Amino acid sequence: MKIKGFAMLGIGKTGWIEKEAPKCGPMDALVRPIVVAPCTSDIHTVWEGAIGERTDMFLGHEAVGEVMEVGELVKDFKKGDKVIVPAITPDWGDINSQRGYPMHSGDALGGWKFSNFKDGVFAELFHVNEADANLAHLPEGVDPVSAVMLTDMTTTGFHAAELAEVELGETVCVIGIGPVGLNSVMGANLKGASRIFAVGSRPNSIEVAKAYGATDIINYREGDIVEQILAKTKNIGVDKVLIAGGNVDTFAQAIKILKPGGAIGSVNYLGSGEFIKIPRVEWAVGMGHKRINGGLTPGGRYRMEKLASLVETGKYDPSKLITHRFEGFDKIEEALLLMKDKPADLIKPIVEIKW
Amino acid sequence: MKIKGFAMLGIGKTGWIEKEAPKCGPMDALVRPIVVAPCTSDIHTVWEGAIGERTDMFLGHEAVGEVMEVGELVKDFKKGDKVIVPAITPDWGDINSQRGYPMHSGDALGGWKFSNFKDGVFAELFHVNEADANLAHLPEGVDPVSAVMLTDMTTTGFHAAELAEVELGETVCVIGIGPVGLNSVMGANLKGASRIFAVGSRPNSIEVAKAYGATDIINYREGDIVEQILAKTKNIGVDKVLIAGGNVDTFAQAIKILKPGGAIGSVNYLGSGEFIKIPRVEWAVGMGHKRINGGLTPGGRYRMEKLASLVETGKYDPSKLITHRFEGFDKIEEALLLMKDKPADLIKPIVEIKW
Amino acid sequence: MKIKGFAMLGIGKTGWIEKEAPKCGPMDALVRPIVVAPCTSDIHTVWEGAIGERTDMFLGHEAVGEVMEVGELVKDFKKGDKVIVPAITPDWGDINSQRGYPMHSGDALGGWKFSNFKDGVFAELFHVNEADANLAHLPEGVDPVSAVMLTDMTTTGFHAAELAEVELGETVCVIGIGPVGLNSVMGANLKGASRIFAVGSRPNSIEVAKAYGATDIINYREGDIVEQILAKTKNIGVDKVLIAGGNVDTFAQAIKILKPGGAIGSVNYLGSGEFIKIPRVEWAVGMGHKRINGGLTPGGRYRMEKLASLVETGKYDPSKLITHRFEGFDKIEEALLLMKDKPADLIKPIVEIKW
Amino acid sequence: MKIKGFAMLGIGKTGWIEKEAPKCGPMDALVRPIVVAPCTSDIHTVWEGAIGERTDMFLGHEAVGEVMEVGELVKDFKKGDKVIVPAITPDWGDINSQRGYPMHSGDALGGWKFSNFKDGVFAELFHVNEADANLAHLPEGVDPVSAVMLTDMTTTGFHAAELAEVELGETVCVIGIGPVGLNSVMGANLKGASRIFAVGSRPNSIEVAKAYGATDIINYREGDIVEQILAKTKNIGVDKVLIAGGNVDTFAQAIKILKPGGAIGSVNYLGSGEFIKIPRVEWAVGMGHKRINGGLTPGGRYRMEKLASLVETGKYDPSKLITHRFEGFDKIEEALLLMKDKPADLIKPIVEIKW
Repeated sequence: MKIKGFAMLGIGKTGWIEKEAPKCGPMDALVRPIVVAPCTSDIHTVWEGAIGERTDMFLGHEAVGEVMEVGELVKDFKKGDKVIVPAITPDWGDINSQRGYPMHSGDALGGWKFSNFKDGVFAELFHVNEADANLAHLPEGVDPVSAVMLTDMTTTGFHAAELAEVELGETVCVIGIGPVGLNSVMGANLKGASRIFAVGSRPNSIEVAKAYGATDIINYREGDIVEQILAKTKNIGVDKVLIAGGNVDTFAQAIKILKPGGAIGSVNYLGSGEFIKIPRVEWAVGMGHKRINGGLTPGGRYRMEKLASLVETGKYDPSKLITHRFEGFDKIEEALLLMKDKPADLIKPIVEIKW
Repeated sequence: MKIKGFAMLGIGKTGWIEKEAPKCGPMDALVRPIVVAPCTSDIHTVWEGAIGERTDMFLGHEAVGEVMEVGELVKDFKKGDKVIVPAITPDWGDINSQRGYPMHSGDALGGWKFSNFKDGVFAELFHVNEADANLAHLPEGVDPVSAVMLTDMTTTGFHAAELAEVELGETVCVIGIGPVGLNSVMGANLKGASRIFAVGSRPNSIEVAKAYGATDIINYREGDIVEQILAKTKNIGVDKVLIAGGNVDTFAQAIKILKPGGAIGSVNYLGSGEFIKIPRVEWAVGMGHKRINGGLTPGGRYRMEKLASLVETGKYDPSKLITHRFEGFDKIEEALLLMKDKPADLIKPIVEIKW
Repeated sequence: MKIKGFAMLGIGKTGWIEKEAPKCGPMDALVRPIVVAPCTSDIHTVWEGAIGERTDMFLGHEAVGEVMEVGELVKDFKKGDKVIVPAITPDWGDINSQRGYPMHSGDALGGWKFSNFKDGVFAELFHVNEADANLAHLPEGVDPVSAVMLTDMTTTGFHAAELAEVELGETVCVIGIGPVGLNSVMGANLKGASRIFAVGSRPNSIEVAKAYGATDIINYREGDIVEQILAKTKNIGVDKVLIAGGNVDTFAQAIKILKPGGAIGSVNYLGSGEFIKIPRVEWAVGMGHKRINGGLTPGGRYRMEKLASLVETGKYDPSKLITHRFEGFDKIEEALLLMKDKPADLIKPIVEIKW
Repeated sequence: MKIKGFAMLGIGKTGWIEKEAPKCGPMDALVRPIVVAPCTSDIHTVWEGAIGERTDMFLGHEAVGEVMEVGELVKDFKKGDKVIVPAITPDWGDINSQRGYPMHSGDALGGWKFSNFKDGVFAELFHVNEADANLAHLPEGVDPVSAVMLTDMTTTGFHAAELAEVELGETVCVIGIGPVGLNSVMGANLKGASRIFAVGSRPNSIEVAKAYGATDIINYREGDIVEQILAKTKNIGVDKVLIAGGNVDTFAQAIKILKPGGAIGSVNYLGSGEFIKIPRVEWAVGMGHKRINGGLTPGGRYRMEKLASLVETGKYDPSKLITHRFEGFDKIEEALLLMKDKPADLIKPIVEIKW
């Protein structure tokens, strides 16, 4: 059987192609997307060649879908089930998974398979490894459009707050308020931060940042963010810095505004630059207990279930992130290009697909 | 100089007495209360003899006050400062403090000094050890009436959520929704719990529990709480149980509704009974990784500062807990007796004092 | 194909039987034992009916073996490989595994399959689920007789030290110095405990306890162990208590010798008694931060690899535990009965099998 | 009263001077050294101006001494007591201490007072703040010469293993095997590492490294250490890297040999260079969970007591570090210059003082 999808043809080139449908192993599932969202990393993958050359690979790793087929060892899912598909689908028995890092199953970042080293979700059908462990049932009452945010934006953004170990009453700075950064604001807020500085400038994002718990907006256009934050904290700085934007130079800013004993949680994909530079003096000559953590989000079924439960109980509303909605499988291309162009009012687009 | 205060005269007996004013050591402060609140543990202390015999000891350990005198080594506070006084005022250099347990400085529970082994805050003047470490400035814009909740109710309630290590998206059951338990609900919510079962029956408390994040109210008058919660969780149980009420038998219920790998966080003062009984079978014959934690709240300055920052930023409103307000130093007795009588509409009384 | 093995026929009855050989699923392996050891829990299973009725179930869960067959999806093992087989073989994709508790995959204790709810290793051939995740290569230079200790005794004993979070320079008491308890001594020592009190009386075990790092032997025949340990610690008690023996009443002793802020790590199977009783007063009326942890050991491949690396590098010698050696498949019965009789000089028997 | 001592007169200049004796506050003690040791950081302070200009400041921060005077609030120490004096003497009530970072009391590194911003221990008498919290009794049977190692070398070296959270059976690389690095080897070993790669070349140090648990010596003169370690680990790398030597460029090597999910624990004083450079690609584009931790050692009484207990129980022998012994107060200068010259056979010199 042939299936159609929107693919990376090579670095800088995209198009609609047909490929042989994936095979379903005994533990696996084949899923048809019903809502998908393009991600900035799709842009990096195609137009910056961030993960190297790829040929005729379907793009996309954010989807809610419907199960079309399951392998004979799959127990908890069946044809017709509506499912949340995490962007990260680990090999759960792998040594790195056993070490506590399923997102690095196989090798660093090895849990990220879709549109990385296997075909993604921008296709009529896509393959999910270890279905019982990597799919989550879409709970009744949760809008699939909201749920698609959980697959990557939410889990990644929240992970910054987890990496930094945000605690009750702490002061947090979130650098970057795109869709991931906004979720870092929300993650810090959900973990009990009091004052949250959100660094950004786009009006749409600022509005959501405030709704998600930011107490202070720091606009880098109005001066050096380090100076602004030190001024607002009596030169003491913050307990935690969440990095969800910027580049390799952002870490130097983060170190400068961190208290001794503070921590950085970064979920930013660092696409270029040879080094992340940690300023020696402000890192307290190596001795200030300013921890530097960066990591790919956890994925898998349990992660999705927990995030969905926050939506179900009304404690978190991911729909605020969605600024653009498309309908129809063929609109995937348009949505992706929107992500590439980044108009000023964009936070996150989605595409609903009716089959 | 003589000072007046409301005291425990002996087990079962209270009265207004005069005593010599406390002396101010080089690190210490003397403080005059401006808002105080009685606590259930004052009731236990006097009428149940919970901590043993005490003679002519001023009661009370919840106060916001004004600094009247400081020792010569005190740097950050001066006469006239408005301060939040934590119920727990550790000896910060003690070995147990260095081990990470300042609330047990000296010995178990040794950080709890007021109305335990020194005079409490229901007096014209009271003594605070290590003032720089054990007082917090009342932030501008924070109502002292709200702030007095932080000194014990909030910090104790939140600590249950900390002891149980509540994480994003977890399911939590809070047993007991008096003023401490309501703060356990809030603490679980602030730490990112999704579904929160609150076990209680009083309408006033239920209303606050919902405002603080409870999603399900479990009324023990409507059946066994274990059965109710298992029924609502498909027999899987919850990730965490916070115990802020009940007695030594409450732990058996908690164990029965916990998932393997779950945890209990208890802040309940256990006043009677020889043993806490952990049911062997439901504790998975000792092997289920159902952790049992119970501890006195942290205290001290930093703790109060962090909690106050949650009030300042509007993320937590302790005033919801206050159902009864009195004015005047001489109303302390009435407020305390109210706590003893526990009318159905009581959550927490406070007394404002104008000098 | 029929295979022979030594089985529980029913509670209180054992015998050699023949059964149909297990089938090898796509992720699985079939293994032939080359060294096995009986475990006290086999005794509980058969003669105390600890896990309930079982009919014609092969016993045994401690084995080093040789791979005879692998499923088509198995990548890292092949026929002829010598392997260490952990007693605990989780379903790695299960929700509880994703929550960090693979030993409870499926349900509490669900990672313990051999001689619990599937046939054990006292057979000509046995089945291993998820072979890539649940087998470990026997490293060159590691004696299979030593390696068989790792599968349960070592990993379980060490886990007590992990559960109690033993830290550098801490004082630890280990209650019980059978083969598991001796490994708890070793685990505490490997994690950097300074003073280690080992509670026991058998000369053989005492000798190994000292070799494994015990600094003080406490003989319960010479007086109450609580009094003895308090006397030796100036009434302060110990930082951690590891429970690897005793019964439901042992926890009360442990609580009484624990400092505030201390922790219990128990790996003891609690076979009888309705409740574990925690003494209220010594548990500091619920508020002493004396943590109570009990859990089944982790299992799986990575665990075995790490433990084997301690043997390889000469940092741990499990052969000290072995007091009785048998040769021949048919000696399994004799070895098991030895475990049942517990002669005074017994620590652990093993059976080597030549095919 | 005037006291004599060996001082930094200014950057690059040292000499014997007399100064007014320190005053003893109510919480403090005055101590006379009986064994001292110079430290590489004394060399940095004087000859590299590492902490900026200092005038007529007594050097030295490693001492065992005798109490000569205590303040009126000191309870546990009296004139004549033999004491271990930690290099780090925090202000225990400080906010950063309450946050869990007493070594940063006041400000980053603020717990390091001796020969930093107050007079050091190379004097006839020196001042110790918060004596009850910052002195430890020298245990009977512990040689003061061994004990002086605990004050800085041991605690600092061990802290690298703590920062990296070394766990049972992990593979560790220790970069730098001077006296601190050797203690990092020992710290990793005490925490249960299996394979320990020690990077260094001096024969004396290599011998102690092996005695302290190193299993592999990596000589950087025999090739790139990254290549050597990857070759010895099948290109997988190590779980943890402890940095106790090198410079700002050492971190890049550490990142390259770390597994995803691994951690760096650095205790190295970074004296020069604008940035620590983290290689982007090997840091897994920011997403590999390779944690970077660096911190000043904990200090204070409890820390010293725990370390001393490891010596008392024979689990750690710091005397192996001492290669040069001097006698007499006036030999301090010679010992310090030896540290400056670093002859090939030097690990650590000490000076015994008889008064």
